[in-house]
Amino acid sequence: MKVIEPKNYNFSNVKFFSPMQLGEHYILYTRYIDCLNKVREDLNSDTTYAICNSNYSDIRSAIKSKTFCYDSIKLHELYFENLTGNNTRIQGRIQSLIDEIFGSYENFIEKFKCIALSMRGWVLFCYDWYHDEYYIYGQDSHDEGVMLYAEPLIVLDVYEHAYMIDYGINRGNYIDAFISNLDFRIINKRLSNLNFWKTE
Amino acid sequence: MKVIEPKNYNFSNVKFFSPMQLGEHYILYTRYIDCLNKVREDLNSDTTYAICNSNYSDIRSAIKSKTFCYDSIKLHELYFENLTGNNTRIQGRIQSLIDEIFGSYENFIEKFKCIALSMRGWVLFCYDWYHDEYYIYGQDSHDEGVMLYAEPLIVLDVYEHAYMIDYGINRGNYIDAFISNLDFRIINKRLSNLNFWKTE
Amino acid sequence: MKVIEPKNYNFSNVKFFSPMQLGEHYILYTRYIDCLNKVREDLNSDTTYAICNSNYSDIRSAIKSKTFCYDSIKLHELYFENLTGNNTRIQGRIQSLIDEIFGSYENFIEKFKCIALSMRGWVLFCYDWYHDEYYIYGQDSHDEGVMLYAEPLIVLDVYEHAYMIDYGINRGNYIDAFISNLDFRIINKRLSNLNFWKTE
Amino acid sequence: MKVIEPKNYNFSNVKFFSPMQLGEHYILYTRYIDCLNKVREDLNSDTTYAICNSNYSDIRSAIKSKTFCYDSIKLHELYFENLTGNNTRIQGRIQSLIDEIFGSYENFIEKFKCIALSMRGWVLFCYDWYHDEYYIYGQDSHDEGVMLYAEPLIVLDVYEHAYMIDYGINRGNYIDAFISNLDFRIINKRLSNLNFWKTE
Repeated sequence: MKVIEPKNYNFSNVKFFSPMQLGEHYILYTRYIDCLNKVREDLNSDTTYAICNSNYSDIRSAIKSKTFCYDSIKLHELYFENLTGNNTRIQGRIQSLIDEIFGSYENFIEKFKCIALSMRGWVLFCYDWYHDEYYIYGQDSHDEGVMLYAEPLIVLDVYEHAYMIDYGINRGNYIDAFISNLDFRIINKRLSNLNFWKTE
Repeated sequence: MKVIEPKNYNFSNVKFFSPMQLGEHYILYTRYIDCLNKVREDLNSDTTYAICNSNYSDIRSAIKSKTFCYDSIKLHELYFENLTGNNTRIQGRIQSLIDEIFGSYENFIEKFKCIALSMRGWVLFCYDWYHDEYYIYGQDSHDEGVMLYAEPLIVLDVYEHAYMIDYGINRGNYIDAFISNLDFRIINKRLSNLNFWKTE
Repeated sequence: MKVIEPKNYNFSNVKFFSPMQLGEHYILYTRYIDCLNKVREDLNSDTTYAICNSNYSDIRSAIKSKTFCYDSIKLHELYFENLTGNNTRIQGRIQSLIDEIFGSYENFIEKFKCIALSMRGWVLFCYDWYHDEYYIYGQDSHDEGVMLYAEPLIVLDVYEHAYMIDYGINRGNYIDAFISNLDFRIINKRLSNLNFWKTE
Repeated sequence: MKVIEPKNYNFSNVKFFSPMQLGEHYILYTRYIDCLNKVREDLNSDTTYAICNSNYSDIRSAIKSKTFCYDSIKLHELYFENLTGNNTRIQGRIQSLIDEIFGSYENFIEKFKCIALSMRGWVLFCYDWYHDEYYIYGQDSHDEGVMLYAEPLIVLDVYEHAYMIDYGINRGNYIDAFISNLDFRIINKRLSNLNFWKTE
């Protein structure tokens, strides 16, 4: 079992975010990596499975923390990856797709922002493998409200830690800042990977 | 947007489960279908997006119920599908895979059962697309503790509604009954679909 | 620190509940007692506080299980205590109080039942010390949705374990059965204790 | 039903907190007040009770938001009230009590801080009416992990919104700052009210 390492991100072109905000956020992300590595180690030890019950047991605690930290890592990497400040003009397949589903990018943004103001953890525009459809959904925490079979395309962190340093409780302004930094090349790449699988 | 219909399952070869237990469980499943259809309708209406806040709003309620019911539908369909009482002897690729990861099927069952006794909602043996690995994990409810990027291979419902009629609070016996009804042809089929994608 | 012991209840006059249903429910309750005793022991040991973090730590696991099991014990004892099948005709101070707030007992029952059908764990009619008011509220689990400063007067368990053996998924019939067994002498006693404090 | 108004707090003597941090936190608190007033209004309307189910219904949404916002209001008022920067030297009955239970104030602080680093929402030192005992416990959100029958004595907010503006992700320094501003006159007053009831 290999140890997981944090990925590196280049935030030099990200606008409307302070180095402090992005730096603290990144350190937080590395703690989830530490958590996952520790849990995986414990899950490899037989003593973790000594007591098995749903009220209070080491295995319960390990499984819950594994999902919490692992989901958090995946979501943070998707978030940092699509927040570059490069290629910020909507284009390509994601543009056609959004136009097709929402009528216009403006309509999409309006709904995306409304959902982003209404949830407590994450907002995603995703493809759902189960019924072959695209939609926006939101989570209340890293592991609560996750959609099974969702393939994330656009990922926005709405935890307070993502914006309080720069925006206080003004989440609306933070969402606008996020949207203006979205990298549509990355999003189109996610869509291409998806279409590759889908058409096979 | 098409209305989603409940799927049908043939439980005639399932052993150690009463028709009452399976029948009530199935009706419960259809209610999640009703829920999802209703939410999808509401999400198509602009009035649902009239107020956007994370304390109390229609959009918040709709998004939360959508994920809860949709996850529940997916998980129940996977559960009913792998609970047939046919092809109950481990075989094929799933056997090699489990031997490789856990050393033996007995070791796998021991860990699977321990986790199944320690969670409050679901237990899954899954493939994780993110870091290309296989593991067992568990959820506390339909939408709490879901693993992003998990591809379910074996799915066990440990909600009290899955077993109380037949087993009271004796979850251990229920898990044994479930395992003895597992359809390894279905599980191998899930694995084949997965390998098809993976090798492309 | 004294070990907590389960209380005993006399269910001999409870109608429309099978001994199996009540017996299994009671055993479940004793497991929460075991859990609490174990957690309290661990919280007395310094090693439990060796690592302090909100992603994965023994102290986190202990605190979470303590609240889960302790809330469950309190709620189950309140539930079993007001479910006797004796003194089942509404009377005394609780009658005046309900008439005053809801207009009639029928109106109260209608709202109580609606909330009981809409939550996943518990329903309570309570007095709230904070703003000096009475209301019905519900929880989704033992520890999720608990109301701080609530003083429980009527307590109904709507977890699936409370009724599946006798009623399958027909929760409505279970709620009716519960209401027909409510002990209003107990409820009036809770109200008297409350009024004693309130008027001091 | 009277409309609830936000309370006012004098933060002029609070050290190590910026006016920005306290100001944003206070505005957040007023939003929970708005939420509660809106929910109470909806709970007075019969249409809110038109559909009663635990997957998706207005009554479910109202009850959940009521508890979330009401708990949040109570906890924030307790927090702001004990964070004054006045009377910051431990004294009186709370001192004797803590010495008796924890051996020393230093021991108490060590455990309190460890739990504060391990939970995601709130930390409380409370009296528990149910088994007549005092202890520290923590919550993961306003409404998750609340202890029934707890009477709060010391209340610390560990949501990220409580400290990110001033401390980034350095929660340890925030907790120290909080402790150095604790008003022991207020805490002793809470204890006196409690003892009044307890000795009656």
